[in-house]
Amino acid sequence: MSVGRITIRVRYTECDPMGVAHHTAYPVWFEMGRTELLRAKGTSYRELEAEGVFLAVFSLDVRYRRPARYDDSLELETRITKTGVAKVCHEYRLLRDGELLTTASTTLACLDADGRPRHLPEIITAGADRS
Amino acid sequence: MSVGRITIRVRYTECDPMGVAHHTAYPVWFEMGRTELLRAKGTSYRELEAEGVFLAVFSLDVRYRRPARYDDSLELETRITKTGVAKVCHEYRLLRDGELLTTASTTLACLDADGRPRHLPEIITAGADRS
Amino acid sequence: MSVGRITIRVRYTECDPMGVAHHTAYPVWFEMGRTELLRAKGTSYRELEAEGVFLAVFSLDVRYRRPARYDDSLELETRITKTGVAKVCHEYRLLRDGELLTTASTTLACLDADGRPRHLPEIITAGADRS
Amino acid sequence: MSVGRITIRVRYTECDPMGVAHHTAYPVWFEMGRTELLRAKGTSYRELEAEGVFLAVFSLDVRYRRPARYDDSLELETRITKTGVAKVCHEYRLLRDGELLTTASTTLACLDADGRPRHLPEIITAGADRS
Repeated sequence: MSVGRITIRVRYTECDPMGVAHHTAYPVWFEMGRTELLRAKGTSYRELEAEGVFLAVFSLDVRYRRPARYDDSLELETRITKTGVAKVCHEYRLLRDGELLTTASTTLACLDADGRPRHLPEIITAGADRS
Repeated sequence: MSVGRITIRVRYTECDPMGVAHHTAYPVWFEMGRTELLRAKGTSYRELEAEGVFLAVFSLDVRYRRPARYDDSLELETRITKTGVAKVCHEYRLLRDGELLTTASTTLACLDADGRPRHLPEIITAGADRS
Repeated sequence: MSVGRITIRVRYTECDPMGVAHHTAYPVWFEMGRTELLRAKGTSYRELEAEGVFLAVFSLDVRYRRPARYDDSLELETRITKTGVAKVCHEYRLLRDGELLTTASTTLACLDADGRPRHLPEIITAGADRS
Repeated sequence: MSVGRITIRVRYTECDPMGVAHHTAYPVWFEMGRTELLRAKGTSYRELEAEGVFLAVFSLDVRYRRPARYDDSLELETRITKTGVAKVCHEYRLLRDGELLTTASTTLACLDADGRPRHLPEIITAGADRS
């Protein structure tokens, strides 16, 4: 469970006049990677929010190495690299046919419904390598 | 106050590999037209939501006549054409240098915080031609 | 082949402060429906563009009956309803657990690389009910 | 000319079920900041592309400090911090009523129409502090 893998089909509307995926599409895919990583652990972000647990992106760092193109079928690997009392860090690797296109990392803060920091639920970090 | 006018600069991310604005960008602009029409009447959609008034799009009809391009400066006209007890209809005309690119219409339902129909506030229809 | 079916997972970024899918997300899904309908026929829109065949949305009509929510798994049915020399019409039905949420229709014009009308390739209409 | 300033009105569709601007909206705004910085120098990105000059985002780093909300009127400052033979670095500061919400930086590669590195045109760096 330490790495989640999803397949992404690049949408036409995600591509720009250069004919490649616009750089703002990638963070959307990373969020999908986190969503499915949670689902693989037996919960869902929708359930977490219903229980008053919110995850807000605090930092985002992306390195775009090679462009993704319209209709490409991409593989996204999502991994938890570090957890704290009220935060969680992920790393992402986006590949096409085994070729690495993009790497990225995020830090998310765990908040309650009023926007105050709260303890990260254990289910989120289950199976993750603790730092 | 019967017609609202705003200027829209076409964003790069709104354009597709054909080099023109993707058809899904236009309904976003129509929503901006409604937002600014409300503001011109002395209220705002943010205030309405804070008061428990929600406007949900029930129908959307668009005719794309000529494409808008990246970095075009467009003029959008927004007009209320009809109001009911719990709904409001708008029409839109999108122009570039006086040339008509797109026409559209929407019907919005007025809902309360629980998603039930409620009376349309008078401020929304102020200055509109009643049907 | 007369009806294409795809499953759509509603993304977080596609939802708005009302907690439901924003009405501008739906036309993106309809485009995905058309894309996969083409793929099921043995071609792809990417290949068509490479051959100089472009499909531009000329009209879009949507009826939003019930809201889709974050993380919903939706089924989209896409059907060609009519074809002309240089145009093709589709209808869409979006369902959640068998409940009809949204219906829509589009008309697409078939254009060459210079934006002039051209004959619709036969592969697009293969298996469709001719009008 | 060393700092460009634009005003951004947060769109409804840019906000998520938490009621705040989704983190993927910000990089779109940074691109708008770069676009208007170029325009203030007497050129435009549209003209550059017509001349075969393409700017591709190679890296993106964002620190989200405080959330932006629907209908907020934000001020974005965009500054060139460093230029190389074929690249340009920008920094961004996003403020609301003088309060700093977000900081970010990007590195863009300058490419020709075939995607190969090419010299950055002088107009892009005019007025920038050279590193």
